[in-house]
Parts: sequence; structure tokens; C-alpha cells
Amino acid sequence: MEPVNLKTLAKQLNISVSTVSKALRDSYEIGAETKARVVALAKELNYHPNPYASSLRQQKSKTIAVVIPEIANNFFSLAINGIEEIAQEKGYHVLIYLTHEDYQKEVAIARHLASGRVDGVLMSLSSETANQDHLHELHAKKISIVFFDRVSESTEFSNVTTDDYESGLKATNHLIQQGCKNIAYLSVSRHLSIDKKRKEGYLAALSKHGIAATEENIVFCGNNNEENHEKIKQLLTSENRPDGIFASIEKLAIATYNICNELNLRIPQDVKVVGFSNLETAHILNPPLTVIRQPAYAIGREAATILFKTLNNKNYRDERVVLNADLVERTSTAK
Amino acid sequence: MEPVNLKTLAKQLNISVSTVSKALRDSYEIGAETKARVVALAKELNYHPNPYASSLRQQKSKTIAVVIPEIANNFFSLAINGIEEIAQEKGYHVLIYLTHEDYQKEVAIARHLASGRVDGVLMSLSSETANQDHLHELHAKKISIVFFDRVSESTEFSNVTTDDYESGLKATNHLIQQGCKNIAYLSVSRHLSIDKKRKEGYLAALSKHGIAATEENIVFCGNNNEENHEKIKQLLTSENRPDGIFASIEKLAIATYNICNELNLRIPQDVKVVGFSNLETAHILNPPLTVIRQPAYAIGREAATILFKTLNNKNYRDERVVLNADLVERTSTAK
Repeated sequence: MEPVNLKTLAKQLNISVSTVSKALRDSYEIGAETKARVVALAKELNYHPNPYASSLRQQKSKTIAVVIPEIANNFFSLAINGIEEIAQEKGYHVLIYLTHEDYQKEVAIARHLASGRVDGVLMSLSSETANQDHLHELHAKKISIVFFDRVSESTEFSNVTTDDYESGLKATNHLIQQGCKNIAYLSVSRHLSIDKKRKEGYLAALSKHGIAATEENIVFCGNNNEENHEKIKQLLTSENRPDGIFASIEKLAIATYNICNELNLRIPQDVKVVGFSNLETAHILNPPLTVIRQPAYAIGREAATILFKTLNNKNYRDERVVLNADLVERTSTAK
Repeated sequence: MEPVNLKTLAKQLNISVSTVSKALRDSYEIGAETKARVVALAKELNYHPNPYASSLRQQKSKTIAVVIPEIANNFFSLAINGIEEIAQEKGYHVLIYLTHEDYQKEVAIARHLASGRVDGVLMSLSSETANQDHLHELHAKKISIVFFDRVSESTEFSNVTTDDYESGLKATNHLIQQGCKNIAYLSVSRHLSIDKKRKEGYLAALSKHGIAATEENIVFCGNNNEENHEKIKQLLTSENRPDGIFASIEKLAIATYNICNELNLRIPQDVKVVGFSNLETAHILNPPLTVIRQPAYAIGREAATILFKTLNNKNYRDERVVLNADLVERTSTAK
């Protein structure tokens, strides 16, 4: 039996191969009726696209880029898995670029991508990125960009985030319910909108419970792990040592564990800890870590889905999607 | 003051810009004397290459690809950091491709790369890869490939590995010294040479201590996490339950912790555990995990260094580099 390919479908339906191809990609250029006929026949003949061979027939690079700050982070690993699942369905390759939280590197990668190497870009900003000119330049070159998690708030871009404000509120409320009266927030960046929202949630929870926020209790960490270590250590050896820590990202929660071990502080007896994290080992840590768990895989899938809609229809409007995160209670915040 | 660029250097030395450029890249086409003159003047005038602008002037893509099975693994994160450090020095971009341990995907990526999208490839094989035709095809297209960790043993490729046999020996000897008499090996693949070597080290240690190896104690795991879970659970509920587990990779050590929790087996009292791992949280697990720690960052740097030597000199001979791993003793193997 001959293999069923686009040509087979086109011949039987008496339409062009390009129309079949577009119909299968759900292109806005093709009418609903034609789409239905193509899909029905494809199903009948058990047509399966060869995801990789198809790129050879097309002008497009059939490649999307994912630009992220780091990979030693389970949130990004899971998000990439979600992205790759959608890309594979669409027959696209995925390239991953790392900025290592370096603004200059992010700019260089954006310029490199502007040369048309890829069809679209999924991006999570570096924590140092304050100026977004390079992103607008990329957008001006008609390269579609969809942000996820660490998003640009510029109205021209679609983005997918977690309910960061509500999650910040939830994490801080939880610490208060568990008896904390002096709660610190470990921030990863002064620039990122997600960090600002998590902090706003933290401040709102304090305010709601009549707890005064202090400057000392908001610790601005960054990309230098040793500096972060020193800052958190200073916090935990201060006269007014906090009894609760809310870490905005995974690596700051791990740093807190390390410093508590160093200082012989017991978690949760002396300090309770909660952090945003998709750490695979959170439940087997000593003690198990209470986390705000983002739906990382779904975020990746959602962002990729929006990107492909945009690629198939340049008039596609920017979209904002907000997914909910869970609080997973474990021993690190026990009473 | 005008910026010092390649043209400045070329003018002052009365040689071509291309000669200056090649000399600075340590190309074999340029004589030692000329190289020395160029480097001396570059130093004197405090010349710094713009790592990204230079790609615009050249034919080459100035891009290398890293093809790895997964990223939710600290070994690969660290190796990539090492690779990126060298690439940045050379002014190259790094693209990361994930095979998700899928042989078909690895083949598709290799074919995609054969189109000349990148100058060279650094690769760690999928655990399912038994046939290596796609790698030979890529090599035949004059794309340089250097393997690291999960290497091809074909003589045409350079590769960088850990001393897997010695590490397998070391891990197993350690379990025996800590009192284990019935030690199981969790294998991740029947195909990977590193897995075979780790297992050979395990078998050699048993044999040296007069312990008989059994078929039941060698558990062949794969890419299906649920199946792995079942297999390890079966092992740990068998009549002849092992008192020591040697996990060939990180995720199998984590799975062992999960199953011990499920079965209320105490680590290290009931079962001692050691695994290959660069897990960032190994020391704060409950209990802290004894690991064979590979020099992941150095492996990445070394593999990238060899790749750039190959790119600058197609006659560069294949090279084999073996780096040593450490045994880091923690509570999971305490007496």
C-alpha cells in the first residue's frame, strides 16, 4: 500500500496540496467547510504527518526558539517539556537559548534571532532586564514573541503567567496561620513583574493581618549566589531574626536551607520556609519543603499554543493567560 | 579615541584583516610568528573582540548545538554551563536540543543539523540509541561532533567521559565497606557505554570481595518513570531484598528514596543508597545522599574546547579525555 501523504489527500479532494496542508494546520486562510472535508478524509485514510520531513517542503524554518534565564531549575525544565509537546505535534524543532540572567546576553540572543533563524520565540526574561528595546526590535522584524512566567508587560506581546499576586498572598497568609509574626520576603529581581506581584501579595497579606512591613524584611537577591548567601545569612543572624521566610524562587529556598544548617537553626521550629518551587526533591528534603507549585508544564503548553496561533495568523491579537498555582503544605511550615 | 578593531590591527601590522582574525582564532593556517605579532599588538592596544558582531562578518553560522537527552538533571545543566563559558570566549552562540531519550527524535535532530545550521555539535546520546547511522551521516557532512558523558565509542569521534568503570568500582566497594552483602545495580540503559562500564565496575567489586552477582540484582530501568518505579519496588519487596542500591543515574536514586518512603524502609538502616548525581539538594535530602559526583562543568568545558580545536583544524585527530569523579560520603550509606 502506498503511503498516505498530502498529495494523496489533495488528489482525492481535487484541491491543491498547499490547501490541504493549510487546512491541516488550521490556517485562517482556509474556510471551515474545506477544513472539515480535509480533516475527515485524513482521518478516514489514517493520514499521519511526518513532523520532520514537512519542514523540507516549506519556506519556513519550522523552528521556534525558547529563551530562558537558566535550566538548573525545575520550573523551566517542565515548561520546556510542555512547549516541546506542542511543537512536536506541529512538526517544529525547538532550540533553547540560555541568557544566564545576563541582560547583555539576552540582547545578543534577540539580535541573533532577528536574523530570521526561527519562526517564533518563547521567552522568559532575565532578572536583569530593565530595558526592553531589544524585544521591540525583534517584534518589529515580524518575529512573533510570546512570554511566559517572567513576562514583558508591554501590550504588544502575548503572555502566560501564574497568579503571582494571589500566590504571594496565599504563601504569606499560610505562614501567618502557622504562627509567624515576622516574615521576610526574598526577592530575585527589582525588575521582573512576577517578582513585584509576588511581593505585592506578601505585603497585602501582612497588611490584612495588621503586621507592619519593614525594609529589612525585603531582601533583594540577584544572580551572584555568594552575595545572596551573605544577604540571607545577615537576615538570619540579625537581632530581629524573622520566624518565616517566603522565597520568591527555588534557589533562594535552597539557599535558606543551607544557611539554616550552617547556623544550626531548625526548620520549622526556629524559621518556617515556603518558596515558589517545582523541585522534584521538595518532598524528600530534610524537612520536606512547603511550596507554591506553578503549573509549569501547562504554562509551557499554553505559551506554545498561543505562539502557533500567532504564526498561523499574523493578525492574531495579543493574549493574556493566567494559570493558578497550588500551595503544597509540608513540614517546613509546620506549627 | 577610535575603537580598536580587527582593521586597526591589520593596518598597523600591514597584513590582511582575515589574517588577523585567523591569527586571533589560533587557526592552523597562520604561522606561529605572525600569530605572536598579532597577539602582542592586540594586547598592547587592549583589543577586545565583540563576540557577537563578529558572526556577521563571517560565513560561518558561529553557532554550535548541544544535543542532550534531558535537562531536568543537574549533570547536564552544569555541563552546559561549562560549554557556554568556552563558547562565549570564542564568540559562539549555543543552541540546545533535547532528545527526551527518544531515538527517533535524536535521528530527526541529527538530520536537521546536517543541513548546516551549526558549525559543530556536542552530544550526549539518548539511552535508546543502539544504531548510530545518523551520527555517521552527520559526520560525513563534515559537521564536527564531540561526544560527552553518553558517548559513541566509534573511533571517528572525539569524546569526553568520566572514569565510569573506576567510579562503579568505587561506589560498590564503598557499599561493601559499609557492610552491604547484597547489592543491586540500577541500570538506565542496555545500550550506553557509560552504563556498561559502571556495571562492569560494580561486577568487578563484587567479584573482588567474593560476592556472587545475581540476575535479580541488576535492574534494567528505562525512560518510563512508572515502569522504573514498579521495577525498583519489586526489587525492594522481594524475598531476597538488597541491603545496598547503586543507582547509575540521579533520577533512579530519587526513585529509590520515594519507594523506600512508600515501603517504610529506612535509609541507611534497611537499605544503603549511592548514586551518580550532581543533585544540588543531595546534601539536604532526608537522609543526605552519598553520590559519585562527576566533574560536569569540567566535562562541558573540555568537550567544547575539543570541538573548537576541531572547527579550526579539520585534520585535528579524534581525542579521548577521561576525567575523574569523586565519591562524596553522606548519611545514605552510613553504617
